[in-house]
Amino acid sequence: MSDLRPIGVFDSGIGGLTVVKELRDLLPDEKIFYLGDTARVPYGGKSASTVERYSLEIAEMLIEENAKMVVVACNTASSVALPNLEKTLSVPVIGVIRPGAQAASRVTRNRHIGVIGTRATIKSGAYEKALREFDAGLRVSTLACPLLVPLIEEGWLEDELNYPLLTNAIARVLEHKVSLVDSARNCATAVQELLDRYSLCAPSGNNGSLKVALTDQPDNFLRVAREALDLDVGKIQLREILHGAVQV
Amino acid sequence: MSDLRPIGVFDSGIGGLTVVKELRDLLPDEKIFYLGDTARVPYGGKSASTVERYSLEIAEMLIEENAKMVVVACNTASSVALPNLEKTLSVPVIGVIRPGAQAASRVTRNRHIGVIGTRATIKSGAYEKALREFDAGLRVSTLACPLLVPLIEEGWLEDELNYPLLTNAIARVLEHKVSLVDSARNCATAVQELLDRYSLCAPSGNNGSLKVALTDQPDNFLRVAREALDLDVGKIQLREILHGAVQV
Repeated sequence: MSDLRPIGVFDSGIGGLTVVKELRDLLPDEKIFYLGDTARVPYGGKSASTVERYSLEIAEMLIEENAKMVVVACNTASSVALPNLEKTLSVPVIGVIRPGAQAASRVTRNRHIGVIGTRATIKSGAYEKALREFDAGLRVSTLACPLLVPLIEEGWLEDELNYPLLTNAIARVLEHKVSLVDSARNCATAVQELLDRYSLCAPSGNNGSLKVALTDQPDNFLRVAREALDLDVGKIQLREILHGAVQV
Repeated sequence: MSDLRPIGVFDSGIGGLTVVKELRDLLPDEKIFYLGDTARVPYGGKSASTVERYSLEIAEMLIEENAKMVVVACNTASSVALPNLEKTLSVPVIGVIRPGAQAASRVTRNRHIGVIGTRATIKSGAYEKALREFDAGLRVSTLACPLLVPLIEEGWLEDELNYPLLTNAIARVLEHKVSLVDSARNCATAVQELLDRYSLCAPSGNNGSLKVALTDQPDNFLRVAREALDLDVGKIQLREILHGAVQV
């Protein structure tokens, strides 16, 4: 049994392309439709109810693209909106929190996990909750880093836009005494498991592809992403949100 | 002849409260209704057409509040959306670009003006255009500073959220060899002139007031703004944009 429909992936902007990169490497047979809500980026400083509403609107747009699964490649949206998305959507939904938390709970040597993220991600407590589901005895320290995203987007932190590559810079500061978890890679692995579980895989030997759409016209950020990620994003489509299409 | 309706002021976020502060000082008889589009902040990295659409939606919300004039207290929106707002709205509209440009053209000693702003502001060329209307022989140098707003909002540049107060930090770096123009103050003066011209002033001795509404739930930023600006913003109202109400 196989399923030719695309995997739908969304993020508040284009950082989620790091997840797409891992998905393309791990699942070359799959078609991927990526939607970045660049008209309303960033989500990280906004309220939970607003992030929830935006996430639902964007996810519904992926469903309209015939997505067989929705991947929330955005930490903020995953932290805040996942329960509501799971309840509302008719296809499997997966975020980046649980895969990241699971990986962290596995690699920690002293059972003390540090979490950095946007205000909304940290405020939600989603990582603590997910981490303690894997190991109730973990010690968890969190810190909101609202400047991380703008600094990365402007290329001040070495690897423009390729968030997971920040691991290099962070690892150097931490003198490699701390294990770093790559959320993009772990999310892709979790997607693979979910495709298997629901018998949603594309047929082997299928020619996978990537389509990228944004809610605002792309600017030069995208060129940077393309170069930093070595990802063929093709012609970018525009999907304007002229009217909030979803009744909440 | 006097007019008791409020002056409507909008910004992508809460930075425009600096204009409100000046308006309250200069025009204590006036009622002011401020609307910050915090659900879609920032505007500065977004495309001109998106900023135009957002500005129109927010301005229409001010008109629904019975505003007698619309003040665009946002450099990005002023740069990109002003012509369209002037064409569409039935009340006078004023932005921050012309008042700032006029002041700069007056204070410059070497007829060389520097402009810093968001990507969208700089890309629009609005300051060059306005400056050259006042003095066609001005030399204008521009620089997009996309990190300025996030750094200020996170309190890394001394005076949190009070953008015009940045003049102190910038003046120090420039060793006071450069005259700095305060857009908030000049905008307030231009509003006063416009009220006079259109006979829209509130009656003298009227008890002015300020109402603040945001499109996303306020967070602790607002407390900072309140403290930095010494502005009594009262109880913050929430005006969610559930549906883009405007046909563009």
